[in-house]
Amino acid sequence: MEPVKVGLLGLGVVGEGTARVLARNAQEISRRAGNRIEVKSAAVRNLGKAEALGIEGVALTTDAMSVVDDPEISVVVELMGGCDFARECVMRAIENGKHVVTANKALIALHGNEIFQAAQDKGCMVAFEAAVAGGIPIIKAIREGLAANRIAWLAGIINGTGNFILSEMREKGRDFDDVLAEAQALGYAEADPTFDVEGIDAAHKLTILASIAFGIPLQFEAVYTEGISAITSEDVSYAEELGYRIKHLGVARKSKDGVELRVHPTLIPERRLLANVNGVMNAVLVNGDAAGPTLYYGQGAGAEATASAVVADIVDVVRTMTADPHNRVPHLAFQPESLSNLAPVSQDAFESAYYLRMEACDQPGVMADVSRVFGDLGISIEAILQKEPAEDSSVVPIILLTRRVNEGLMNEGIARLEALSSVDKPVVRIRVESLG
Amino acid sequence: MEPVKVGLLGLGVVGEGTARVLARNAQEISRRAGNRIEVKSAAVRNLGKAEALGIEGVALTTDAMSVVDDPEISVVVELMGGCDFARECVMRAIENGKHVVTANKALIALHGNEIFQAAQDKGCMVAFEAAVAGGIPIIKAIREGLAANRIAWLAGIINGTGNFILSEMREKGRDFDDVLAEAQALGYAEADPTFDVEGIDAAHKLTILASIAFGIPLQFEAVYTEGISAITSEDVSYAEELGYRIKHLGVARKSKDGVELRVHPTLIPERRLLANVNGVMNAVLVNGDAAGPTLYYGQGAGAEATASAVVADIVDVVRTMTADPHNRVPHLAFQPESLSNLAPVSQDAFESAYYLRMEACDQPGVMADVSRVFGDLGISIEAILQKEPAEDSSVVPIILLTRRVNEGLMNEGIARLEALSSVDKPVVRIRVESLG
Repeated sequence: MEPVKVGLLGLGVVGEGTARVLARNAQEISRRAGNRIEVKSAAVRNLGKAEALGIEGVALTTDAMSVVDDPEISVVVELMGGCDFARECVMRAIENGKHVVTANKALIALHGNEIFQAAQDKGCMVAFEAAVAGGIPIIKAIREGLAANRIAWLAGIINGTGNFILSEMREKGRDFDDVLAEAQALGYAEADPTFDVEGIDAAHKLTILASIAFGIPLQFEAVYTEGISAITSEDVSYAEELGYRIKHLGVARKSKDGVELRVHPTLIPERRLLANVNGVMNAVLVNGDAAGPTLYYGQGAGAEATASAVVADIVDVVRTMTADPHNRVPHLAFQPESLSNLAPVSQDAFESAYYLRMEACDQPGVMADVSRVFGDLGISIEAILQKEPAEDSSVVPIILLTRRVNEGLMNEGIARLEALSSVDKPVVRIRVESLG
Repeated sequence: MEPVKVGLLGLGVVGEGTARVLARNAQEISRRAGNRIEVKSAAVRNLGKAEALGIEGVALTTDAMSVVDDPEISVVVELMGGCDFARECVMRAIENGKHVVTANKALIALHGNEIFQAAQDKGCMVAFEAAVAGGIPIIKAIREGLAANRIAWLAGIINGTGNFILSEMREKGRDFDDVLAEAQALGYAEADPTFDVEGIDAAHKLTILASIAFGIPLQFEAVYTEGISAITSEDVSYAEELGYRIKHLGVARKSKDGVELRVHPTLIPERRLLANVNGVMNAVLVNGDAAGPTLYYGQGAGAEATASAVVADIVDVVRTMTADPHNRVPHLAFQPESLSNLAPVSQDAFESAYYLRMEACDQPGVMADVSRVFGDLGISIEAILQKEPAEDSSVVPIILLTRRVNEGLMNEGIARLEALSSVDKPVVRIRVESLG
């Protein structure tokens, strides 16, 4: 049988990893796929740099479109990153009737609806396992492994940089800025860390996970996104005292009004497996009505882990190239004509429990004032701690855990707390999820 | 499009769960599969009992072969358990050109080679996701999600009963017999618990996992199997003191001589995620050369969790019914003509670290005697603890952790320890895996 010819767009970290894994494990892969997979050519920005990688048998070019237009190539693997040119290449590959594999989460989160529609019209596949959680086959698990389930919610640690920072803060009692600087030195965080620490990267991934879990169109703009840069070592240690760990979670949950899509720091009970996912590792917990909770854990980034997902997608594409398109796994898990119009709910309608921390005057009656605010609003308090004031200070930290409540009501509660003369502004708020 | 008609063999716990999940989530499932899936008939042992379940629209019969021979039925779902009649039904279904889905781990572990050969000859699929780790899509993860990888080893908690017993022993300091009796009362353990606690069930599952990870034929008879009934609460607490937890693991590992297939109690470092999988939950850790370690966690048993896997298999089968058989995912992950002849190694050639516990006379020189035995054999000791003797006793427990060593050499070491006049027989031995 003729080998399947693949063209790579990009030979950066993931592109190089993909070429190396395909070469190193060629025998293992073709024993599985029943077909050889050959990288015919790769489009790169810098020929000299690419040649220096010494990858044998792959023709190099700076002209991406020549790869996309090559009639011998049946699978185009987009590993350039960025949205504009990547989108152009992917759309043209589809127009040429080629299948596409991509690791580009931003591209899928922002332009996936259009790309999948075009692919559908042309009978092409667009596979994107590598776009979420690196080497963990989470797209496959949700789209295929849990096909029998109504999924109620999922929650994931889907940004390794953020998880490394929060893990270090907890394990060593260090401050955010200090750990971020180290993460940058180690190469875990970019020079401009916004994408990772402000949750944008996680929101791209959550957009994708939510779509395939609930069968809704991709809608990145509807994701509520809050970063971890405001998390203090105090909050980390108070959380620990209460039996919780702070993790930067992506959460997608069906509620009575629609679907909550949110990325934010979250207290989770320390006994949960997800609370014990440390360092740069990723994990996603999915709750289906039949399977119950299932969790998927592994490396969320890195050349070879991401390449593992890219190559698995190539093998999948090769397997189903001859299949009736109707019988392929749909891009968003559900048949395109069966997508749901379940709408994202606004932040006010979110429901969760809350951790609040405030500075209050060390005077009698403060606890009563605080408790009354919540009593008046019908918000149940699960725990309240008043810490000792620091030396030479008349200010005491008060920490409060509430039961599950509507976020609009919590906003009102916080506004009332901040209006108290005995409480300083601002009140710190972190959401709490029991994940039970 | 005509719905796909399915016939169930068995309406016990999993059969009933499968019928209920297919009915309850019919819309969700057909939105994914692009096709309706209908249970046409079910073969049962006791008609009255089955009628009492009140499952609508399913014809009941006591004649399993009438389901297997029904020309309208394209997928036969075997959920009877047992090996003899189940094998007969499955082979006849294949002979009739039908696809098969089964949750029967013993059937696959013992007769899979023959069944897959027959299926291959007839162009039929036999899907068995539900045979290992219930609702966790572990077969799919290994066969497809990790298709790019050379898998070095895998280790799993794949028997919920055993894990429940070990978790309770640790958390509550209880004895094996005591917890087993409770597990039986709760319905987690059978009246005859041999299958679960002696590791036979886990060995069936390990047989399957090893085959799809390494591309070797199923060879249940080659699995070294040791149960947990000899584990004492002392061992559990000494392990904890050393920073370990005892889990009943199935381990499959490529070694320089072949492949180690083993099921036995194992000390694992408490910081590992696998060490924190408690109660009846299952988890499998897989180490691939590209993806690195990935872990899959969830309910390993129960009506609905197992049904989740059965239904996912049905959806997969429906999807690939029209596909070129060559392009389907091979039963054992690798194309049948590409299976490996990597041979199972004998117990003597296993390699692991060891926990040893012995009772010794409380007299000077004992530690030196024990240390000398290992020094002479070139076995490195990582830790050695000599506990206080119990009151009114002249016997002291000595606990020892070794580094990785060949099991044959360890057997010699234990024989020499047991020959010492200062050490009582027998020396307790539990394997240690760092899983790093």
